[in-house]
Amino acid sequence: MAAAHGADMSFDAWMRERLVEVERALEQWVPADAPAGLGDAMRYGVLGAGKRLRPLLVLAAGEAVGGDREAALRAAAAAELIHAYSLVHDDMPCMDNDVLRRGKPTVHVEFGQAQAMLAGDAMQALAFEVLTPEHGVAPALQARLCALLARAAGHDGMAGGQAVDLASIGRALSEPELRRMHERKTGALLRASVLMGAACGHTDAAQWLALSDYGDAIGLAFQVVDDILDVTQASDVLGKTAGKDQDANKPTYVSLLGLDGARRRAADLHARALAALATVERSGRAGATARLAALADRVVHRQN
Amino acid sequence: MAAAHGADMSFDAWMRERLVEVERALEQWVPADAPAGLGDAMRYGVLGAGKRLRPLLVLAAGEAVGGDREAALRAAAAAELIHAYSLVHDDMPCMDNDVLRRGKPTVHVEFGQAQAMLAGDAMQALAFEVLTPEHGVAPALQARLCALLARAAGHDGMAGGQAVDLASIGRALSEPELRRMHERKTGALLRASVLMGAACGHTDAAQWLALSDYGDAIGLAFQVVDDILDVTQASDVLGKTAGKDQDANKPTYVSLLGLDGARRRAADLHARALAALATVERSGRAGATARLAALADRVVHRQN
Repeated sequence: MAAAHGADMSFDAWMRERLVEVERALEQWVPADAPAGLGDAMRYGVLGAGKRLRPLLVLAAGEAVGGDREAALRAAAAAELIHAYSLVHDDMPCMDNDVLRRGKPTVHVEFGQAQAMLAGDAMQALAFEVLTPEHGVAPALQARLCALLARAAGHDGMAGGQAVDLASIGRALSEPELRRMHERKTGALLRASVLMGAACGHTDAAQWLALSDYGDAIGLAFQVVDDILDVTQASDVLGKTAGKDQDANKPTYVSLLGLDGARRRAADLHARALAALATVERSGRAGATARLAALADRVVHRQN
Repeated sequence: MAAAHGADMSFDAWMRERLVEVERALEQWVPADAPAGLGDAMRYGVLGAGKRLRPLLVLAAGEAVGGDREAALRAAAAAELIHAYSLVHDDMPCMDNDVLRRGKPTVHVEFGQAQAMLAGDAMQALAFEVLTPEHGVAPALQARLCALLARAAGHDGMAGGQAVDLASIGRALSEPELRRMHERKTGALLRASVLMGAACGHTDAAQWLALSDYGDAIGLAFQVVDDILDVTQASDVLGKTAGKDQDANKPTYVSLLGLDGARRRAADLHARALAALATVERSGRAGATARLAALADRVVHRQN
């Protein structure tokens, strides 16, 4: 771990190290021995796949502000657990009815619908277990992390956004309506990932707001790019069914702004994210947000 | 509220007052304005029905140990939210496929399966939101309550018990297997309700263990009585479909011990719960656990 804090590490090397840590943490915390196959379904839904964007955001934000490493690792795992549970539930027949996710059959295809629903439910609870260890994280920080995560996951965050998404199939949404939906559905958890990392360290009010703005910008950029990839990439590259949104007649940034317009919007949001990081740096040490900047690049330039 | 602390209040008057407080709290905290009908589905699943046993256990335990009232009310609402979400998911077609609950059509019948799943998901998140307010509850207590609730709800608690329940349909379970299933499925949350109340106040180690034992005993008694009522009561009295477990060939205390054996088991557990309360009283003030004793009576002698 000697090199782990080095701001001079290349981003790729940093990311590889952090992904190993996150994977090891999830391996340890997602139980193999939960009863009646529930643990198998949970592990299938969480381990060994996924870009781990939310954990990387937590860890990069935590390191940018000198955050407690144990707390940040727990927040990273918790954010991924919430994300992974939402995919498990979202793929079920009563929702998106998808059979392919992260290049594998979805959890309900592999384990049945009842087990998939329970696994998702248990993954959400596990996120809050992971945030509240008996030792190693200050209780007040545990409470703060639970507060941030619960609000991002719930009715005014991810779950609320999914409800709007369901209600919007086949409807013409305005651009502000589409944005508000995505701010909840994916943006809230991405922003909360950044803010959970920030909560693990020390920020002044301006830095906190700037990190929140960074989280908002990359959260929305992520979705705009998702919409672009849905029409430009094949299923085998995405690891999930491509063209799905178009087929379902869901409103997207591409259907609303066109492909070029969506690309311009992604570039604008990218610029806004980087501008927010400049504000964080002005009241902190120079270079502290380089990982967050690199993650913003990845979000905008990803191919799947 | 002058009379609210009075240990000399009759149990019925105490319970009526507490039920009003719990209902008012849930009314306030379960959002009416969550987007796209999600709030309506959540409120339908939580408000205006249910015995509120878990909230009453939280509040009675809290009062027995001089607990913080705001924290205990939040813990009471959170426990009910977890219970209510589990009913919403449990009733869905991929699980128990039940159409009647608390005397009303189930949430998925009323709002559709997708909304029911999302409402349950959002109710679980809301439980942790309610436990982590910005002000009014000490952060360390917030963390403790989140820790207790998450573990009771998750893979080693309620969700794990439901997985075992699903896997046990049509199988011959031994009595220890049946007990272990129920300890998770319903017992964990009932015990956690008692312990969340206890966490809001002051207990020594012996009191904590005794309250935990009380919770275990009434948790299991609750299930034994449930099994008895399933074969002795009509659907209109239960507010849910009677004879369901028998029809599904699920193992129950009645199928394992016979009706008389199950009744003796409930009486034994009742006695164990009261004995545990005697231990709590020996190191506290006399009469402090009278509400918990009355709740144990209700659990064992309830008709629905």
